[in-house]
Amino acid sequence: MENTNKLRTSGCPVAFGLDIFGDRWSLLIIRDMMLHGKKTYGDFLEGGEGISTNILAARLKQFEAQGIVAKSRDPDSGRSYLYHLTDKGRDLAPILFDIILWSGKYDARPFARKGVLNRLKEDRPGMEARVRSGELAPIQPEPVNGAED
Amino acid sequence: MENTNKLRTSGCPVAFGLDIFGDRWSLLIIRDMMLHGKKTYGDFLEGGEGISTNILAARLKQFEAQGIVAKSRDPDSGRSYLYHLTDKGRDLAPILFDIILWSGKYDARPFARKGVLNRLKEDRPGMEARVRSGELAPIQPEPVNGAED
Repeated sequence: MENTNKLRTSGCPVAFGLDIFGDRWSLLIIRDMMLHGKKTYGDFLEGGEGISTNILAARLKQFEAQGIVAKSRDPDSGRSYLYHLTDKGRDLAPILFDIILWSGKYDARPFARKGVLNRLKEDRPGMEARVRSGELAPIQPEPVNGAED
Repeated sequence: MENTNKLRTSGCPVAFGLDIFGDRWSLLIIRDMMLHGKKTYGDFLEGGEGISTNILAARLKQFEAQGIVAKSRDPDSGRSYLYHLTDKGRDLAPILFDIILWSGKYDARPFARKGVLNRLKEDRPGMEARVRSGELAPIQPEPVNGAED
């Protein structure tokens, strides 16, 4: 829980960004919303990397405070919320995509997933446009052996 | 010190990248090497955000283990090392640049620095090419009022 939600004052834009999403978990939650169509707290808990409830709750609260994510009442369950990316959150797409491209080049482990990587290589501008319009179709459920996504 | 240097095994490329550089400090050290021409442990300590010696030492060790950074003996001081980015490290440039562009759009604080942002907007392909060739001239020392960089 290194992320303390304090903004450093060096004026450096790299530091500004890292103060908001520079940790092991933030961009995984953004990924779940942006690429996997996930919307609820429960969805994010099942994101695949075993995020803990306290980290997830803290990050969602921080994202709301920063205007990256907004929430609304779930019409199907008045006690629950649906989370979605704002324009500021969708603008994180290039960063996410570049991380995927870098990892695709350097992650040689046999279980490394290549589905989004291949889609990015085929049509990155199209993927970015669909993210920004909120139209990106959720990626299909991941197969057990992880050949896709 | 959330970064534990353990690689998660979900196969997700976002998780892979974040396991290597997903924390508040890693990309600031990369920034110092990539954009500011910094090379020594002492240079990085003075990076402007007050990184602690233990975090800096841990990150440099981790970068070396991951092949992002390599070190050589400083010819001017046999006890010191010079650190430089490998090709794998230079390939982080697009991620760093996208963070700078995102922050440039959303950091409205009066002391936010715009120098690199403006250079990126003018000629991003040129900056990337120079980073990859190791030829990017160090950015000039930062003025007290932070109008540049």
